[in-house]
Amino acid sequence: MPTFVQILDFIGTFAFAISGIRLASAKRFDWFGAYVVGLATAIGGGTIRDVLLDVTPGWMTDPIYLICTGVALLWVICFGRWLIRLNNTFFIFDSIGLALFTVVGVGKSIALGYPFWVAIIMGSITGAAGGVIRDVFINEIPLIFRKEIYAMACVVGGITYWLCHVAGMESYGCQLVGGSTVFLARILAVKYHICLPILKGSDEVEANENKEQ
Amino acid sequence: MPTFVQILDFIGTFAFAISGIRLASAKRFDWFGAYVVGLATAIGGGTIRDVLLDVTPGWMTDPIYLICTGVALLWVICFGRWLIRLNNTFFIFDSIGLALFTVVGVGKSIALGYPFWVAIIMGSITGAAGGVIRDVFINEIPLIFRKEIYAMACVVGGITYWLCHVAGMESYGCQLVGGSTVFLARILAVKYHICLPILKGSDEVEANENKEQ
Amino acid sequence: MPTFVQILDFIGTFAFAISGIRLASAKRFDWFGAYVVGLATAIGGGTIRDVLLDVTPGWMTDPIYLICTGVALLWVICFGRWLIRLNNTFFIFDSIGLALFTVVGVGKSIALGYPFWVAIIMGSITGAAGGVIRDVFINEIPLIFRKEIYAMACVVGGITYWLCHVAGMESYGCQLVGGSTVFLARILAVKYHICLPILKGSDEVEANENKEQ
Repeated sequence: MPTFVQILDFIGTFAFAISGIRLASAKRFDWFGAYVVGLATAIGGGTIRDVLLDVTPGWMTDPIYLICTGVALLWVICFGRWLIRLNNTFFIFDSIGLALFTVVGVGKSIALGYPFWVAIIMGSITGAAGGVIRDVFINEIPLIFRKEIYAMACVVGGITYWLCHVAGMESYGCQLVGGSTVFLARILAVKYHICLPILKGSDEVEANENKEQ
Repeated sequence: MPTFVQILDFIGTFAFAISGIRLASAKRFDWFGAYVVGLATAIGGGTIRDVLLDVTPGWMTDPIYLICTGVALLWVICFGRWLIRLNNTFFIFDSIGLALFTVVGVGKSIALGYPFWVAIIMGSITGAAGGVIRDVFINEIPLIFRKEIYAMACVVGGITYWLCHVAGMESYGCQLVGGSTVFLARILAVKYHICLPILKGSDEVEANENKEQ
Repeated sequence: MPTFVQILDFIGTFAFAISGIRLASAKRFDWFGAYVVGLATAIGGGTIRDVLLDVTPGWMTDPIYLICTGVALLWVICFGRWLIRLNNTFFIFDSIGLALFTVVGVGKSIALGYPFWVAIIMGSITGAAGGVIRDVFINEIPLIFRKEIYAMACVVGGITYWLCHVAGMESYGCQLVGGSTVFLARILAVKYHICLPILKGSDEVEANENKEQ
């Protein structure tokens, strides 16, 4: 029987895969392309993390991520039209996935003995890099660089996790507090339209840069 | 003296490099940029595979891939105008490369003891990921996500290879049957215009997605 | 106290991060997005090199690169408008960074016992791949594929380094000669508008390619 964390993991993978497949469908990808974009969204962050940490990526030992993505593709093919009404449900699922993926990334790095800044970055990569790969595949500027608090929620949650760890809390407690922080930061940021400031750029800078470098 | 498989490997590398260099030339890249795009098309898939399998990429032990790409660049510089007439020849070469690269990827993964789904994915990455990198470099949506049977041929060939392996066939036989399957699937798909269905996307989905995530 | 090479390393990292942050600001990224693009520009090349060489990336053992990028972001936020006047200064800093990063990449590969072609490629990846990632993130065709001598300076400097190494020069001498070659090649190429030839592409090729592959 799957544990509670595994069930959260399935939900997160499913939500991330749906997000990739829907954006692929908006660009008129075929089924195969949509599956690849969904899979990259779901496992891309964890794969980059594992390559950097020099361990074997999770999907190479457990096919559950491939199956989850397949189910997500079937779901979109069959119920694509209904998905729009479920936007709020998927937003909650996506935030659960973000929280869980971040916590897994931070925990894995700390367990391997890496310093805190590596753990926080690995948590953010696990949570947010899949979305960056998705946006590169569909040839758009990655959303997380321009809009809303998304990866910042991972950073804040990762710092909280690490503070709990330093304070001597057990692994389970760190995960709970860190994950809840990511989840709440994401939900509150969207609810109250909290954004980071935009970096001011002038056309002059752009023009100069293009000419010069 | 090079073996038969090595000669096929040269032909495949050459055809993949040509495909990258031609698309780079259509975007008015300089010689260096065209070489890099050609090289990434030819060795990109194998490099990602080897990083994931945690072995040293082939081009780091044998310079033949760099030389092949250099010859391909010279060829396009000298005979670029004639290339158009050779489209059918290059289509055959490209399909040979696809078949061989897939078989190499599947075989390497099985030899390292990975399960069948990893082997099939690694075969597809070896065959098709170079083209994805190429399309990211030239800032286009990767072709294989939208058009024709390309990476699907790798998947079908990889499954065939694995079935032969399970059935107790020797490595050489698996390679022959798996490679032929990739080659035929690709040729037949183009000849009879076999496509995967497009995933239906509505503007509504796109609009919602942009607003919400 | 930091050594001379470390100071050059800070200057290079700072200049690369500024280059990423400025281009991100021209695309109206938020602070987080600008930081990520700056960081990817500064450490992306070295990270790809270290993954290929199967060693731990430098920023995972020393947080100085993350701090440097943070200082660069603060700088752009506070003094963004003044940066335009400093274009020439940053061009010199950027060229110092390019020279130093190339030399580090070549030296590390030779020290690990890799053959000369791997060392030259690793030097070029260390120097130029960060800029390619930057351009993929901001959804532009990578500049180094189309304009000026940039990565070619790395290749020329890498060959010079290797020739010095073969001639029996000590590591320090190789670094000095190799790095100066990169720096001078870059400066002279910009001063005298030296470019590589553009690969001629016809619309016909492009049309054919799109139809066929």
